[in-house]
Amino acid sequence: MACLVGLCTGLVGYAINMAVEYIAGYKLSQTTSFISDRKYLIAFLILAGSNMVLVLASAVLCASFGPAAAGSGIPEVKAYLNGIDAPNILSPRTLIVKILGSIGAVAGGLAVGKEGPLVHIGSCIASLLSQGGSKKYRLTWQWLRYFKNDRDRRDLVTCGSAAGVSAAFRAPVGGVLFALEEAASWWRSSLLWRAFFTSATVAITLRVALSSCTGDNCGVFGSGGLIMFDMGVISTETGISELVPVIVLGVVGGLLGSFFTFLSGKILRVYALFHSRYGLIGKLFQAALVALVTSVLVFGLPWLGSCTACPTGISDECPSSGLSGKYKSFACEPGYYNDLASLLLNTNDNVIRNLFSIDTEGLYHYSSLLILLCSSFFLALFTYGTAIPSGLFIPVIIVGAAYGRLVGKFMRSYTQFQSLDEGIYAYLGAASLLGGSMRMTVSVCVILLELTNNLLMLPPTMLVLLISKTLGDLFNHSVYDQILHIKGLPFLVEKPEPYMKHLTVMDVCSSPPVTLSAIERFGNIVEVLKLTDHNGFPVLDHSSEVPKLHGLILRSHLLVLLEKGGSECNSVDFAKPGSGKGVKIEDIKLESEQMNKYIDLRPFTNASPYTVVDNMSLAKAFSMFRQLGLRHLCVVPTTPEASPISGILTRHDFMPEHVLGLYPHLRANKWNRLHVQPSA
Amino acid sequence: MACLVGLCTGLVGYAINMAVEYIAGYKLSQTTSFISDRKYLIAFLILAGSNMVLVLASAVLCASFGPAAAGSGIPEVKAYLNGIDAPNILSPRTLIVKILGSIGAVAGGLAVGKEGPLVHIGSCIASLLSQGGSKKYRLTWQWLRYFKNDRDRRDLVTCGSAAGVSAAFRAPVGGVLFALEEAASWWRSSLLWRAFFTSATVAITLRVALSSCTGDNCGVFGSGGLIMFDMGVISTETGISELVPVIVLGVVGGLLGSFFTFLSGKILRVYALFHSRYGLIGKLFQAALVALVTSVLVFGLPWLGSCTACPTGISDECPSSGLSGKYKSFACEPGYYNDLASLLLNTNDNVIRNLFSIDTEGLYHYSSLLILLCSSFFLALFTYGTAIPSGLFIPVIIVGAAYGRLVGKFMRSYTQFQSLDEGIYAYLGAASLLGGSMRMTVSVCVILLELTNNLLMLPPTMLVLLISKTLGDLFNHSVYDQILHIKGLPFLVEKPEPYMKHLTVMDVCSSPPVTLSAIERFGNIVEVLKLTDHNGFPVLDHSSEVPKLHGLILRSHLLVLLEKGGSECNSVDFAKPGSGKGVKIEDIKLESEQMNKYIDLRPFTNASPYTVVDNMSLAKAFSMFRQLGLRHLCVVPTTPEASPISGILTRHDFMPEHVLGLYPHLRANKWNRLHVQPSA
Repeated sequence: MACLVGLCTGLVGYAINMAVEYIAGYKLSQTTSFISDRKYLIAFLILAGSNMVLVLASAVLCASFGPAAAGSGIPEVKAYLNGIDAPNILSPRTLIVKILGSIGAVAGGLAVGKEGPLVHIGSCIASLLSQGGSKKYRLTWQWLRYFKNDRDRRDLVTCGSAAGVSAAFRAPVGGVLFALEEAASWWRSSLLWRAFFTSATVAITLRVALSSCTGDNCGVFGSGGLIMFDMGVISTETGISELVPVIVLGVVGGLLGSFFTFLSGKILRVYALFHSRYGLIGKLFQAALVALVTSVLVFGLPWLGSCTACPTGISDECPSSGLSGKYKSFACEPGYYNDLASLLLNTNDNVIRNLFSIDTEGLYHYSSLLILLCSSFFLALFTYGTAIPSGLFIPVIIVGAAYGRLVGKFMRSYTQFQSLDEGIYAYLGAASLLGGSMRMTVSVCVILLELTNNLLMLPPTMLVLLISKTLGDLFNHSVYDQILHIKGLPFLVEKPEPYMKHLTVMDVCSSPPVTLSAIERFGNIVEVLKLTDHNGFPVLDHSSEVPKLHGLILRSHLLVLLEKGGSECNSVDFAKPGSGKGVKIEDIKLESEQMNKYIDLRPFTNASPYTVVDNMSLAKAFSMFRQLGLRHLCVVPTTPEASPISGILTRHDFMPEHVLGLYPHLRANKWNRLHVQPSA
Repeated sequence: MACLVGLCTGLVGYAINMAVEYIAGYKLSQTTSFISDRKYLIAFLILAGSNMVLVLASAVLCASFGPAAAGSGIPEVKAYLNGIDAPNILSPRTLIVKILGSIGAVAGGLAVGKEGPLVHIGSCIASLLSQGGSKKYRLTWQWLRYFKNDRDRRDLVTCGSAAGVSAAFRAPVGGVLFALEEAASWWRSSLLWRAFFTSATVAITLRVALSSCTGDNCGVFGSGGLIMFDMGVISTETGISELVPVIVLGVVGGLLGSFFTFLSGKILRVYALFHSRYGLIGKLFQAALVALVTSVLVFGLPWLGSCTACPTGISDECPSSGLSGKYKSFACEPGYYNDLASLLLNTNDNVIRNLFSIDTEGLYHYSSLLILLCSSFFLALFTYGTAIPSGLFIPVIIVGAAYGRLVGKFMRSYTQFQSLDEGIYAYLGAASLLGGSMRMTVSVCVILLELTNNLLMLPPTMLVLLISKTLGDLFNHSVYDQILHIKGLPFLVEKPEPYMKHLTVMDVCSSPPVTLSAIERFGNIVEVLKLTDHNGFPVLDHSSEVPKLHGLILRSHLLVLLEKGGSECNSVDFAKPGSGKGVKIEDIKLESEQMNKYIDLRPFTNASPYTVVDNMSLAKAFSMFRQLGLRHLCVVPTTPEASPISGILTRHDFMPEHVLGLYPHLRANKWNRLHVQPSA
């Protein structure tokens, strides 16, 4: 099964890359040829027009057919794996929109990557396969239906996210680590093994697919095999003296990364307001504006760059005829090149490749790097939050590499730290910005190493990530956590908040709960289901003199019982349906005769639900709820009372918003919290 | 803190490596010079004598001062992280014995590695630092005492194990993954970050330490910086045709690995019997025998090898004068070399380096590789279980590389699969045997990649590991799990056994439990503590008409209360002491007057222990127990009864031995279990 997920994700990743490569390649080669013919207006119109068409197509698809496909999708996958079943997040429709939209957005030259979307795509594929295909689209496979339970499905989606990273960066180990560090909320060793299996399948699928690339027919995508940005072997003779530049890069990257996160949060709120006010038209207008501004910048800014004479004695072609060269001729005379054009009027992958290139001292001017840094920083923010599938990895890497190379150029000219190459500075700059904005460490480290095939850079990469993450964490949360917060998804963090130690479960629990009797009238059940939106109901046994808690019954099981009208049910009926499917209470019509019938709920009740006593500290209950991955936690009284159940805790009861809403005096700032005495 | 652990482990790792390098280097150079003077007997005596002295020193240390330091230590660390507090596992004495013993055993030329011991050493250092130094040896640091609780200590020991691998293989990412995949039983993302931090510190420490190596003064240890066995860049042009040899290697490696595991289990039982019968003398005798046999084999077997004329046109020196060369002269005429001597009469690291060397077609004869394979397989098994610190990684890598190179030589000569180099075959063979015996995937994969600096080999490495692990798992458990089983440590596996679904908690629970009253007489407490060895006691509140469960009190807290005699206690007294320390019931002498006094236990009781109802399935209770990392789980009755508590579940109640002892009919074989219907 994991193998199948890997295979499909690998093939989809390959297809997306090839599509982007062909479309963007065609677009750029047309533009370039018109530029070299001095037909600048036509060149610009072709560039801007094709970008506009591609981006609008992506935005239309995304806004009208699959709104869930907008953005990178990583926060949504993270939320799903945390136990939040948002509608349509992993539906087949989202999958298709994401694939097509991502091709459009990336080929349309926007400052977005296909990496985040591929993680979402991998997860969608995994979810789709685990549901045994889609009923809606009549694509069902009986033999795929062995995974109709939450745990297996979540495990498979975790593997899918690993497969996504694996396919996106051709970094199988990085994919496993990404799933572990960023995506998954629960982890078991057997999951590690499965994620590894999936990733390995992706790697082997890609390798076989790439081996069909002969010559130039895969463009730059095919070159280098599984290594995307080969930096070659770099001398290991650098010692302690390299620590200073590494620390500088880490500090600046951490600050810049958290600043980027801060700004992106603001942008996201503004756009969300704009989108909700103007609807579809607003989304399309904004996407078109982004496309236009991007086209203007990438075409217009290279005019600021000067033409430089080609250096002699280099192995690369200059000015380069293909798309991937470092020496773009742009509007220069033959024998001259425009360094800014190589950095702007190019595919994102090539820009990164150029920035990472080593032994190219002085290839880019200060001004070019500064312009690239500013424009890419602006574009990354401006594009962020547009209603298209958009990954954040690539824009962040570009910004980071630009700033790193700028710092490197400066350090090498004006300080004594000259041992590192400019390409290495760019690489470390990218690492520091990734660390500063996404706050991943091991996975970013391994992904970068796998991207660049440069294991000797491991210690400095680790150091730069440590510094930038630590610094970034001082200021705000990671980009992805910020999106979760803005979207209002009830994400359960790993550890209880410190103030939870001072509350008991009864302080936050909504009590008394709505209960059902062991022998219950159908009419009552319908009424309870209509009046409340709870998902679990305690079942009380009134047979003895003191009522006794028999267990907990789920809304979904009650609905199945109602639908069958009390006739025979088997376990398949109670199997977990795909997300967003299943019976709804509005669909159920019972005759009045039926409404008066009684049903014994006990056989369908979970007779041993997890319980806590009502004086347990909220922090302790939180740990239990979070670590066992519960949806309901019954609170029972310590002293025998009239009711055998005092309340039910759900995910929302643990949310800081809920708790602090009830007890505003606990709202301490970050620094105060640190001084709260832990309870003995 | 994590930084400090990393720093210390890095320095210790460096020191061990340097010590081994100097001692073994001196020993071998003496031996070699006597051989070249044709004084074979003296050469042998020097070799065997120094081996014997080193190994005996190690065995004496280990057997008399720190028996806990024998073996690799990885299973013990794994057990500790699973919640098993075995005595002295992480004590300072064990640490010192392990460091010295490991130097002796490795420098003594045995077929053991220093990698496993380094993991244990890293964990010991972490534990020592987390306890704020050792009281016994008067090395205490007040400022290190912030970690006096189980969770922080375990987290730090996890980081320590990561640091160990990181220092042993100079593989920081591999270290993190090892801690995650093999060592840790519970995992949180914040732990990942801390383990990464520790590993990075080790990497940077080692890098700085290695930068002090100029010229030859670190021997082969210094060369290559952080990369131990540099395989250089290998052509990526190999495509699908390489799949067949990779699969062959994986299959054979998986079979060989599980066979190795099987045999090692037998050996371990035999040795354990022998050691327990003859005590210290038996251990020393056996260690001396191993040292002697090893010396005889490595000195005697090269005589079977023939002298070969040095090839012309190679860059390496031939016959090589230093210790690390591929062309050992041994007893040959000048201009000739003995290939078997380079593989046997050498340090383990050099043997691996020689086997992994690429572009050395035909360097080793079939017979030499076969002799190496047999002798190293025999020595690895024969040495395993000796009472010295001994790692398994290195012997397994040697056996695997020998068999891989043999297969490669055969494949290249007689089949059409000639695209892979013999060195690559050796590398993949080592990977497959590691996968087949240790059953780790991601971590072994990354460790090997970091060892050899060869990222292009990632997909085949993953494939070979997948195959060998899958095959090995069909036959038996991993080497480490086997040791846990043989030592009888109550290791809690990750998932409940299938038969647990058919039992309720009351079926296995020892009931009724020994309870205490909320207001209890000192005399009673002493009696209960003396009569039982339980670690937790339910406290019942008899104040109302129906007795009520007030909570659970720990033995250690009761002991503190007794020691203080009911006078004032503060929270520091209740802090968790270091392993093996703390008050014992035998140490407590109370006067009879005191024995009749009463104490209110309620302030010291955990008033909201985790509870389950008595009809909960054992599998569900197991999940809760395992995932929350509990030591006690109270079972409460569903229906109000005389006693408010029905029993207490502890780790031992969940052990398969215990459960199957009670219900032998559930003892199904592996295949039957698969067909048990999961409960609805």
